[in-house]
Amino acid sequence: MKPFEAPLDDILFSLDHVAGAGALADWDGALAGEILGHFAAFAEGVIAPLDEPGDAQGCRLENGAVKMPDGFAAAYAELAEGGWQGLTAPETFGGMAQNQLVAAAVSEIFSGANHAMQMVCNLVPGAVATLLRFGTEAQQQTWIPRLAAGEALSTMCLTEPGAGSDLSRLRCKAEKVGNGWAITGEKIFISGGDQDMSDDILHLVLARTGTREEGIKGLSLFLTGKKEAGRTISITRIEEKLGLHASPTCQMAFDGTPAQLVGEEGAGLAAMFTVMNHARIDVALQGVVHASRAHDIARSYADQRVQGRRPDGSEAVLSDHADVRRMLDEQRALTLGARGMAHLTLVALERGDNPALVDFLTPLCKVFCSEAGIRAADLGIQILGGYGYLPEYRVSQTWRDARITSIYEGANGIHELATTTRGLKLHGGAGADAFLAMIGNLTDDADVLSICSQWRETRETVLAARDPAALAHDFTQLTCELFLRAVWARIADSEDPEMIRLREFVMRRPLPVNFPFSGNG
Amino acid sequence: MKPFEAPLDDILFSLDHVAGAGALADWDGALAGEILGHFAAFAEGVIAPLDEPGDAQGCRLENGAVKMPDGFAAAYAELAEGGWQGLTAPETFGGMAQNQLVAAAVSEIFSGANHAMQMVCNLVPGAVATLLRFGTEAQQQTWIPRLAAGEALSTMCLTEPGAGSDLSRLRCKAEKVGNGWAITGEKIFISGGDQDMSDDILHLVLARTGTREEGIKGLSLFLTGKKEAGRTISITRIEEKLGLHASPTCQMAFDGTPAQLVGEEGAGLAAMFTVMNHARIDVALQGVVHASRAHDIARSYADQRVQGRRPDGSEAVLSDHADVRRMLDEQRALTLGARGMAHLTLVALERGDNPALVDFLTPLCKVFCSEAGIRAADLGIQILGGYGYLPEYRVSQTWRDARITSIYEGANGIHELATTTRGLKLHGGAGADAFLAMIGNLTDDADVLSICSQWRETRETVLAARDPAALAHDFTQLTCELFLRAVWARIADSEDPEMIRLREFVMRRPLPVNFPFSGNG
Repeated sequence: MKPFEAPLDDILFSLDHVAGAGALADWDGALAGEILGHFAAFAEGVIAPLDEPGDAQGCRLENGAVKMPDGFAAAYAELAEGGWQGLTAPETFGGMAQNQLVAAAVSEIFSGANHAMQMVCNLVPGAVATLLRFGTEAQQQTWIPRLAAGEALSTMCLTEPGAGSDLSRLRCKAEKVGNGWAITGEKIFISGGDQDMSDDILHLVLARTGTREEGIKGLSLFLTGKKEAGRTISITRIEEKLGLHASPTCQMAFDGTPAQLVGEEGAGLAAMFTVMNHARIDVALQGVVHASRAHDIARSYADQRVQGRRPDGSEAVLSDHADVRRMLDEQRALTLGARGMAHLTLVALERGDNPALVDFLTPLCKVFCSEAGIRAADLGIQILGGYGYLPEYRVSQTWRDARITSIYEGANGIHELATTTRGLKLHGGAGADAFLAMIGNLTDDADVLSICSQWRETRETVLAARDPAALAHDFTQLTCELFLRAVWARIADSEDPEMIRLREFVMRRPLPVNFPFSGNG
Repeated sequence: MKPFEAPLDDILFSLDHVAGAGALADWDGALAGEILGHFAAFAEGVIAPLDEPGDAQGCRLENGAVKMPDGFAAAYAELAEGGWQGLTAPETFGGMAQNQLVAAAVSEIFSGANHAMQMVCNLVPGAVATLLRFGTEAQQQTWIPRLAAGEALSTMCLTEPGAGSDLSRLRCKAEKVGNGWAITGEKIFISGGDQDMSDDILHLVLARTGTREEGIKGLSLFLTGKKEAGRTISITRIEEKLGLHASPTCQMAFDGTPAQLVGEEGAGLAAMFTVMNHARIDVALQGVVHASRAHDIARSYADQRVQGRRPDGSEAVLSDHADVRRMLDEQRALTLGARGMAHLTLVALERGDNPALVDFLTPLCKVFCSEAGIRAADLGIQILGGYGYLPEYRVSQTWRDARITSIYEGANGIHELATTTRGLKLHGGAGADAFLAMIGNLTDDADVLSICSQWRETRETVLAARDPAALAHDFTQLTCELFLRAVWARIADSEDPEMIRLREFVMRRPLPVNFPFSGNG
């Protein structure tokens, strides 16, 4: 079994060379490298070794409380002690006030070391951002220092039975009680809904303050704390899952739980979007690092496993075979391409001057990077052959853990639909125009620009379509492929022969749609 | 959870309408329908209900013997009692002397009901065929009646540590002892290497009679029985796996095991190919039925799960959404297409007048159908969303079980290489020519014929390539795609609107390679 190795050099190369982090006013590449070096050592030494036993042991629900796998609480204590939970919180609240890029790199490494544990810990930056934007001063003062110090972890309570992708059906209700509110209802699929690592848990809960007929406009955002809520919150079950056995996926019942409104009544979904957008880019990075990890395992195996002979008669290894090289190349191309896409999105987010671009890129990253992680893990299983089907080399765990990423935080089909409708139309199409401008800044490669012009025509077809939903998948896949190629043109503008070879590999991929693009839309 | 339903009508339609079974001299469609109806009822009622608990409980190795999950032995006894293990054996040996098509349909239904159990039972037809072709009369008389009656099951002992896809590295050796032979060495990944369902087990073992330098030419085929071998065979471990927990994957140590030569010394691989070719089409059918089952689960879920609203404001279900329909369509198109491909191959096999065609089609089916099963199961997980990630609806088990099919019985990359080298060259290219002729018999669709002409050019490129291995994947995928489209043109030559719609869906797929086809070969 190959131990987890943080892809530190690849991350720094991508931030610097692909995403142009250096152009940001507050970017300090040397400091970032130092911070990430520390985190990588911690992740490799403390967090990653818990990934396999955590998956084998899983979480348990005992007497209404979740027990994390052995060792998780102690590792979390070290994580909190190191200040990592306050990475993005402002210094006035005890945080390190680092930017989104450093946070993203930490998050990627964390997910690679132990996706299950990362899921439980990493809703905190989104919760902090939500409180900073929508919370009262008292809410900020109460919670942000505790989140930053690791005393509390946080959750995002959205999904209910019968209301997954369709939040307009949420039934969990909040009622005014004296000066405050009380929440009653059921939530499902709540990651980290309970755990025994942090002293307290901040639950951000979407609940209905209006009528059912108001749909999403009747939803408001609330906060409540585990300790304060006491027995008004019950964990009624934790799910058995295909993967992520160490991440407790909770079914929770709220029964008159005291809660505070966050932001305005009826504007819950807008406030929740702050957490959700964080979470989506985070999911994209999970996809990136699963791809990276799957490639790392597969390459290491394929370079050692003796099989067949070279043309000169000497013993060959797996990676001497063309078909294995093809699969390794695809894994590597997906890893670096997906990471570049996520980093470009984060740089646009951090720059803050083009929210339409960020809105356009975020779902693309969610879709492409999650699928890249799943695909690369699947290729990893194939490369290892029979050994890929056994737990020993752990690439099957990478696949099982990765598999959720195209489902949670909005199923990919929902993001594809959003790209094709809201994405193309919002701000008069400014997001899509900014996307094209970004491609132009990344490369002047003739092949990429030729796809750009096909993409422009395709956009017109989609905008004119009676039913754009029928075109959403194809159009989004095409958009992602264009994004990928532009990133690869940028990655390979150095003289590195491996990168030039991989660039050719990417450019030879068949496009996901035929031209002229049509459909039954 | 949706109970397993045997896709009986689809199978009969495919045999008759797509594969043209009616043209075979010994085909009796009414009898086949009757036999398959009986088996379907047995599979649905007795075998399928063991699939989920069998996966949960798994096999155990206790005191050197494999214990199958609860209920398996009793179900097997019923299977044997029904005569199903003798389906293809000649009547003189107590069999039913049914043809390959009926056997294939039984095998498909069996795999859909319980892939793990099918794997343990279904090496028997291949073993019978091998004994009929290469065995002595005494070997036939000793073993075939017992196999047909279900008293014995059989295994195929090939793989060794360090010798998976590359059989030239096999080290397990056979030495002459008196009038017989004794086998010594280690085998791994042996499905059904031990179990407690049948009274005895016939092991077909590939072992080295020549020197290591002779490679595959130093290999011979042997048979030995579990009871006779006694303590000279030990089961040293069973593998923990991603799926197929109810199929015991054994590591076996042979220590001077008494064995009989089957066929000629040094011709072991050729003899083993009889079993292997059976097994490869069987794996293709496993892929077909996984695709079918995944579609069945997903369609049933998507037709019931309320989500969003229709344009008229009424409550919609998942399958009203374009993106879900796209995924359901792909599952269905893969299922029927893959089944048609496998059935056409089986009809060619049964006809027996064109072995070059069968040799050409077999690896295509292994590759395409196994990948179709995995892909359709993956789509099933995606369609079910969060519920696809939980065990409840069992589509994740379909994926876990399906995932081995592109790895075992020759990793797909090996079959792609074979298609591109031996497949194009053997018999002066007669197999590929016969493939084109078959396409022409299936359809005169202009789009399909246009791909045919591109395929002809591509074949020339591959034949002229310095390193065809580098083109193997792309070329084989293109060949499979052409095969799929021809099958779909045939399926949809009726007036059924669903079939016509799916045909359009298939024809719109982007081809897996760009033209003009080139590469670094």
